Amino acid sequence: MTSSLPWRVHHAIRQHELCTPESRVLVGLSGGADSVALTFLLRELAGRGALALVGLAHLNHDLRQTAARDEEFCRALADRVGVPITVERADVRGLAARESLSLEDAARRLRYGFLARVSDTVGADRIAVGHTEDDQAETVLLRLSRGAGLTGLAGIHPRRDRVVRPLIGVPRADLRKYLADLDEAWVEDETNLDLDNPRNRIRHRVLPELGQALGGAAGPAIARAARLAREDGSWLDAIAGDRFMAIARTGPDGLELASQEVMAEPLPIRRRILLQALRMAAPGREIGLDHVDSALAVLEGTARAADVPGSRLELLAGKLVLLTKPPSAS
Amino acid sequence: MTSSLPWRVHHAIRQHELCTPESRVLVGLSGGADSVALTFLLRELAGRGALALVGLAHLNHDLRQTAARDEEFCRALADRVGVPITVERADVRGLAARESLSLEDAARRLRYGFLARVSDTVGADRIAVGHTEDDQAETVLLRLSRGAGLTGLAGIHPRRDRVVRPLIGVPRADLRKYLADLDEAWVEDETNLDLDNPRNRIRHRVLPELGQALGGAAGPAIARAARLAREDGSWLDAIAGDRFMAIARTGPDGLELASQEVMAEPLPIRRRILLQALRMAAPGREIGLDHVDSALAVLEGTARAADVPGSRLELLAGKLVLLTKPPSAS
Repeated sequence: MTSSLPWRVHHAIRQHELCTPESRVLVGLSGGADSVALTFLLRELAGRGALALVGLAHLNHDLRQTAARDEEFCRALADRVGVPITVERADVRGLAARESLSLEDAARRLRYGFLARVSDTVGADRIAVGHTEDDQAETVLLRLSRGAGLTGLAGIHPRRDRVVRPLIGVPRADLRKYLADLDEAWVEDETNLDLDNPRNRIRHRVLPELGQALGGAAGPAIARAARLAREDGSWLDAIAGDRFMAIARTGPDGLELASQEVMAEPLPIRRRILLQALRMAAPGREIGLDHVDSALAVLEGTARAADVPGSRLELLAGKLVLLTKPPSAS
Repeated sequence: MTSSLPWRVHHAIRQHELCTPESRVLVGLSGGADSVALTFLLRELAGRGALALVGLAHLNHDLRQTAARDEEFCRALADRVGVPITVERADVRGLAARESLSLEDAARRLRYGFLARVSDTVGADRIAVGHTEDDQAETVLLRLSRGAGLTGLAGIHPRRDRVVRPLIGVPRADLRKYLADLDEAWVEDETNLDLDNPRNRIRHRVLPELGQALGGAAGPAIARAARLAREDGSWLDAIAGDRFMAIARTGPDGLELASQEVMAEPLPIRRRILLQALRMAAPGREIGLDHVDSALAVLEGTARAADVPGSRLELLAGKLVLLTKPPSAS
């Protein structure tokens, strides 16, 4: 299978409409096996005219002792493959402290911001990142077990705006085999072995146990389930979006939804209309299933009011109103 | 929480419309903690007039050395709680051999057949079985990891026709605590410890590891995700059912679907229309995602034909035709 890996990746790129021959692609390169393999794969596809590879970008998170080694590895790799690289150093700890984020969340935010800036600078219209089928399975299990609900099972999307993930259907093992066949090296991120991190525990303990239970790797099946959940979810989201636009009004106290109209919708659409309303009333805040359940309870009359991020919900004169609270009370 | 367990179960019964005060309920009793707790809980609710408990039913699978002990335990329990019990012995090994089923599948088929017969005999209109929130999480993980796809994530339904599952939202540990508080015993099924069985491995290894990863039990979140998948799936199935009825025709060679009409549907509905067609063409056969994918490929013209259970798919004169094969070729 690994001998045909460039072909499989090319197929995935066309299937998910990630790139065209006109696309100018920047690759996010950490130095790990996934992004190193992505670099070689896209270079090979660029050679066949499937896309243009215009740059590599490495963000030095400066979190680990090996950060300087990783940066050096990426610079040398860029040199050898003949693709320009942009390197920056990020203050992950600083951002995490300032915004009360986990190091993981802070690093992610800085990384995607960095990639967006570099892509503007080098004139790229696609940012390719190295998420694999294993990342997909880990994400789905993590979200499923945390009760992410409506959108969790959909997992990682192959494409979000400029960001594309050509390896999302490729098992990690195939990428390592591909690099080994090319006699290419990569750097290992030793923090991936830390079992206090939930994702690592899922990677090193849960998924292998699942594979044992089933007599075969669980990753492909989970990734496929995620793809179907994404298909179903996208369509339901689109329907709910249309209905939300038709039902929602901006009233004097905040967003208003005519309760009869929302109640007339089937439950999957009703939930999603409420989710959109809650998100609109609290931009940038995390809205969870619990909040949607609270809103449903007010709508159905089993609760008189509910406090959710950014607003207080009440049923007033036949309308579900999202009363905007002063920021201090949120 | 366990002190309010009867209240919680009563709430679930009303929420999922499992029983009314007029319902005549038969309980499937294995002698394990789940079904013993179910018996005591339903007896308590019957005492409050929430339903009528008309009988217990125990099928002796005759598979384990402890089968006679379990049967004796159930008879004694029935005697003590004053509810009539029906006991039968089943030939699980015989059915499994005759129909090439796993022992698990054969036992399930015999058990539900037995419960249906007994409920007719005793005049019950509900059959209550003891599936718990843990069973739900195990089932979802099992199906997710096997790629069951469209309907797998929905897990176990709280109600299917006469069969109701009042404990589907209750963790197994709460039931054991409830029985311990009542000073009631149960029998342990030692085969539940066999880690060669996929479900047992998920129960004893995968779910505890997931809990460790998350710092808390994963079961409730997974059960909630299943509930949402069920909501979404039921609605999508209903839409697809209507469209299928409008599009499908019986032609001279088999079921026919006008390809343009199917292609005009969004992907989630398109997949479900094909699933219904495949199921109709092969009653009682297992139709999987692979078969739906094959049908999609023929419909979209990327494959010329596909062999699926019970039929061969071809695109003929703008119609997807499910050519019925002679039984010998299937």
